[in-house]
Amino acid sequence: MGLTVVGSVALDTVETPAGKNADGLGGAATFFALAASRYTQVHLVGVVGEDFPQEHIDLLSTKGIDIEGLERAEGKTFRWTGRYHDDINVRDTLDTQLNVFEHFQPELPEAAKKAKYLFLGNIHPSLQLEVLRQARPEFVALDTMNLWINTTRKELEEVLAKIDCLIINDEEIFELTGERNLVRGVHKIQQMGPAIIAPKKGEHGCLLFVKNKIFSAPAFPMADVIDPTGAGDTFAGGFMGYIAQQDSVDYDTLKRAVIHGSVVASYTCEEFSVDRIALVTQDDIDTRFEAFVELSRF
Amino acid sequence: MGLTVVGSVALDTVETPAGKNADGLGGAATFFALAASRYTQVHLVGVVGEDFPQEHIDLLSTKGIDIEGLERAEGKTFRWTGRYHDDINVRDTLDTQLNVFEHFQPELPEAAKKAKYLFLGNIHPSLQLEVLRQARPEFVALDTMNLWINTTRKELEEVLAKIDCLIINDEEIFELTGERNLVRGVHKIQQMGPAIIAPKKGEHGCLLFVKNKIFSAPAFPMADVIDPTGAGDTFAGGFMGYIAQQDSVDYDTLKRAVIHGSVVASYTCEEFSVDRIALVTQDDIDTRFEAFVELSRF
Repeated sequence: MGLTVVGSVALDTVETPAGKNADGLGGAATFFALAASRYTQVHLVGVVGEDFPQEHIDLLSTKGIDIEGLERAEGKTFRWTGRYHDDINVRDTLDTQLNVFEHFQPELPEAAKKAKYLFLGNIHPSLQLEVLRQARPEFVALDTMNLWINTTRKELEEVLAKIDCLIINDEEIFELTGERNLVRGVHKIQQMGPAIIAPKKGEHGCLLFVKNKIFSAPAFPMADVIDPTGAGDTFAGGFMGYIAQQDSVDYDTLKRAVIHGSVVASYTCEEFSVDRIALVTQDDIDTRFEAFVELSRF
Repeated sequence: MGLTVVGSVALDTVETPAGKNADGLGGAATFFALAASRYTQVHLVGVVGEDFPQEHIDLLSTKGIDIEGLERAEGKTFRWTGRYHDDINVRDTLDTQLNVFEHFQPELPEAAKKAKYLFLGNIHPSLQLEVLRQARPEFVALDTMNLWINTTRKELEEVLAKIDCLIINDEEIFELTGERNLVRGVHKIQQMGPAIIAPKKGEHGCLLFVKNKIFSAPAFPMADVIDPTGAGDTFAGGFMGYIAQQDSVDYDTLKRAVIHGSVVASYTCEEFSVDRIALVTQDDIDTRFEAFVELSRF
């Protein structure tokens, strides 16, 4: 089957109540790929600069991720610096240096084009459209952000009409539809294209709307959140990875995919950067999946 | 078995994005009793003024609620006026007139004293202690608020040491424990007394901690929230009502009690004041309980 992800690869400097971590491996496509690689063959399409450490490349390769589409360009790697509050659900971006990511032009290698499943990470909608022109997927999921909703709405609507699944948060639903009520907002987005919408709610879990059906997944209650950076991208990776592994998008599979996304996202929060998600085993996944069953069964 | 509730009976004037409702029947004990009366015999202990409409008394009686403990005092009934934002999870209190509630001294009739289950609504902790001196319950749950946490902590801690279950929200957990992490905050509160803690999260559902076990209940996704006033009190009523009906506090019963609380709370939001919860039938409860099963099963 195969799963292609297009998005950012970055070096993150992060400060949380638990400490500080400088120049850690980050980026949406990185977190996504590391999570999804537990489930299926992942093709990573992105760009890094000349300063990108070889050890990170080696890590991705070791995990079986196809990095043929990871371009190394002249210049520096995308860097993000952020600080989390004592309420770890709130963070400030202190610095963003797009560097080589600013002029990223995705070029999909043949294997990435052929993958049956595609995840369009949070990049300019015109680039997402360009990826759709190159690729031949059967199922496409998308992430976006307020910046694109507010500045490139026309292109974003063009993308939305072509995709199957949107992963989004409450605030973005409001920005996109003007609806404060999540259910009505989701119904409006479904009319724009995707029948499947997964509103992420961070520490409150995740919903899944599939046509007129609704599923609610809990978050894993954690006493120690070290660094939530990448949790949402990891969620998307576990979600899409499980779908590709099962090679099915029926409702039961989609529900379990949301739980798998939540499982891997919870691991991501346990250490800085990719330090925990890179080490997650099948046994870890099985154990926490069972914990989610216990958490929600009545 | 029987279930006693002590708390406020009020007249609410409420403005929401859906409209305005003046002098509607309200108060924590009212919502609680109407919900719990679907499950068990409820003894209501509270106070109203001379202006309290007879039709409201009649409604409570019609629902089989024992109102022997509902005192009619000289003066006016407790009145609350509030306005909800477009984001209906946010509200401002515009006016509070305690009136007869200011000097409320709970006097439990014999039947209320004998009830096996007791819910201490959100009143001054010294009054909660007085109720505990009068009553002989086997299981006690409590609601409180930031005001008491910040101004009467010593009395509140004395109450907490005597109860079995605390129903609380995120912000109150932080105020009470200084912990922004919900799991750690709950563990601190458990050390103060109650082994059972139910953190309410409004539109995000509810958690249930029973010793070292955790259950997560979803909220019912609603396209039309007319008036959320009383949802939390209704939740407590459905929760305690179901426990009293089953006459059990084992873990499986407590989990289903949380779902029943969520079921009746969702109905409360469908109309102003008690207009919907007062009409809820067993069939309504069964139907929505099944919807919660569908919502969370994977």
